[in-house]
Amino acid sequence: MNIVQTMEELGQRARASARILATTDDLAKSKAIRSAATIILKQSKQILIANRRDQDAAEEADLPSAMLDRLKLNETRIESIATGLNAIADLPNPVGEVISTTERPNGLRIERVRTPLGVIGVIYESRPNVTADAGALCLKSGNAVILRGGSDSHYSSQAIHQCLIEGLRSANLPVASIQLVPTTDRAAVGEMLKGLNSNLDVLVPRGGKSLVSRVQNESRIPVFAHLDGICHVYVDREATLEMALEIVLNSKMRRPGICGAAETLLIDKSWPDQHVRELVTSLQQAGCEVRADALIRKNVDGCLAADESDWKTEYLDAIISIKLVNGLDEAIEHINQYSSHHTESIVTANDENAARFLKEIDSAILLHNASTQFADGGEFGMGAEIGIATGKMHARGPVGVEQLTCFNYRVHGSGQIRPS
Amino acid sequence: MNIVQTMEELGQRARASARILATTDDLAKSKAIRSAATIILKQSKQILIANRRDQDAAEEADLPSAMLDRLKLNETRIESIATGLNAIADLPNPVGEVISTTERPNGLRIERVRTPLGVIGVIYESRPNVTADAGALCLKSGNAVILRGGSDSHYSSQAIHQCLIEGLRSANLPVASIQLVPTTDRAAVGEMLKGLNSNLDVLVPRGGKSLVSRVQNESRIPVFAHLDGICHVYVDREATLEMALEIVLNSKMRRPGICGAAETLLIDKSWPDQHVRELVTSLQQAGCEVRADALIRKNVDGCLAADESDWKTEYLDAIISIKLVNGLDEAIEHINQYSSHHTESIVTANDENAARFLKEIDSAILLHNASTQFADGGEFGMGAEIGIATGKMHARGPVGVEQLTCFNYRVHGSGQIRPS
Repeated sequence: MNIVQTMEELGQRARASARILATTDDLAKSKAIRSAATIILKQSKQILIANRRDQDAAEEADLPSAMLDRLKLNETRIESIATGLNAIADLPNPVGEVISTTERPNGLRIERVRTPLGVIGVIYESRPNVTADAGALCLKSGNAVILRGGSDSHYSSQAIHQCLIEGLRSANLPVASIQLVPTTDRAAVGEMLKGLNSNLDVLVPRGGKSLVSRVQNESRIPVFAHLDGICHVYVDREATLEMALEIVLNSKMRRPGICGAAETLLIDKSWPDQHVRELVTSLQQAGCEVRADALIRKNVDGCLAADESDWKTEYLDAIISIKLVNGLDEAIEHINQYSSHHTESIVTANDENAARFLKEIDSAILLHNASTQFADGGEFGMGAEIGIATGKMHARGPVGVEQLTCFNYRVHGSGQIRPS
Repeated sequence: MNIVQTMEELGQRARASARILATTDDLAKSKAIRSAATIILKQSKQILIANRRDQDAAEEADLPSAMLDRLKLNETRIESIATGLNAIADLPNPVGEVISTTERPNGLRIERVRTPLGVIGVIYESRPNVTADAGALCLKSGNAVILRGGSDSHYSSQAIHQCLIEGLRSANLPVASIQLVPTTDRAAVGEMLKGLNSNLDVLVPRGGKSLVSRVQNESRIPVFAHLDGICHVYVDREATLEMALEIVLNSKMRRPGICGAAETLLIDKSWPDQHVRELVTSLQQAGCEVRADALIRKNVDGCLAADESDWKTEYLDAIISIKLVNGLDEAIEHINQYSSHHTESIVTANDENAARFLKEIDSAILLHNASTQFADGGEFGMGAEIGIATGKMHARGPVGVEQLTCFNYRVHGSGQIRPS
């Protein structure tokens, strides 16, 4: 297979499909997605056989157990893929939405209308469900998509992709609206990073840090991604122990491995020592390793020492770094220095402090009295997300169907000309 | 001067200023801009002396007269710079605007709030007024800016920049909020294209095609720009002669050299021959060179032959290419193939055709029964623009203060944690 030529052709077919999708009505897009969901359920045996093949290869290759778990499908997971597709089909159609209207003194009516972006490239690793989620989100937002799944989940992704194709067929939409790169050769990713002769408009990498950083560093086209989720919780002097306990434990321990999990806890020095002790002990009792500064270690037993590198680490595990800070100013300073600009939360009964925290920190998501684990498109009411972006261009925070669109201006006149 | 180090330091100072500007209230930003306007008027003699120096050098170097005109300042032009600054100061503050609010069933209130982008780089050529306009627009939107003016206007830009600095001082804002690259060495542009160690977030090139294409091709960071303005007017079969005459003449001849000027006229074949004759003749009588297809040349005298290259050419001059097309479908197809995705207009009394034109063409601005020369931030009610973008990422169409911002999410809770 000539990779360059294969990828070039994928790009051309995607662009041709994107032109059609841009003016396709929502009924057809939703029908394709719903049909795909039905077909996935019907074909679940075949999908599981393909997945077994991927799992066997992965076990033989001695992949780590976390990776094996991400790869694994079963009836329940297939059902939840189908449910997810139907939820995406149910979302309001973003394309064609009039975002704003301006009436000008000369009578021109200027509408800003949501339009698709064009062709989206999604590069992911072992989770086969991304094939369905990303395919459907891009289609719903009127975009063509080129999916490049990991080699570990190749057969599973192919089986799911086949169902998406059937869905597109049933709605009379171009089958190249959702394409899966037909090779696991890494050179295909290199071609996508170059933008496929301007037939690829944006890249969404989904996976580990090495994948995301390669895409961010080498891509010649825009990227929606986050490299790290070094999220902070700051417990202000006016936080109650009860709320701090609930929010800190949930932020860290509900699911320690997601990007919105807290990695560093900052506590105001003037918060009672007894409260600090209870909070840290609760984390330990919940199975969390605590790495703390000297003051905390004096106050609470069983903490490891935190050093500079801990403030820069996304553990993605049941580990947390803790530091006492000299009030809100130092908390904001620490976060703006070490944060990955993803998600931060303040626990306080003081509204002024909360307002400053939300205004002065430069991160995608800032919360007052709520868990960092709410950093999620579904929790934000977007229905589904293709990922979370920490960049500031175009998309920031959860990337849902709306963030996969742009807009144009449609100006309605009655013969207006511009005076010289 | 060590260019790499100089530019690196410029970037660091810009980033430090951007952090402060992000939370600066509008009063201070507007005060700085208004003070700068007052100082520019007071210092007009010194600015004109600096401009004389640039003009002398330009005349000696035998620069083309169009360039000399762009470079030239006089009392009137200085007054209009000051007026422009005051208009920018008067704009509503985009920063902090709550774009949308979502109430979630769990009681979380999620606000999407407008925030600055960070540090903006503006690379321009001979127009010294860009120094003031771009500086003020970036400041108003809470961004720091690094201005890199052309060597032709170096002394004029320096003199104007000095007034902006005084304005910043008078409002107690960091003087590095608006920096002018202190060298005309082209290597400075190369450094900006690399992003100044992540201390530059976006580039706005303002100038000729060679500048814009260099920036677009070599930049490692996002670019807001348009390379071409190959704008079309389509005269539908249901266009009245009267409206077609007004809109076509204004679109082409009001100012043939701006990016929103029409370059190609498409006319439905079934529009009366007599109408076509009158429209083409009017263009010729207004001093416009007409390059037309064979059918039109049979019908009207004095037209040159248009060939394939004409459909791809932005004349920026009193020249227009004209083609008869087989109805709306061919018009849309031609435009989607040859347009630079900037601005297109349809003249028709048929609302269905207009709706299709506005929906099916993939350009930043689409107009029905109005001149393409309305493609301008001021005409759109944005107050002022830093340029027009034909890309789809983040900004599209006129780039005003709003397009120089992004947003983050501010979530207000009362102790919510996420269920497992």
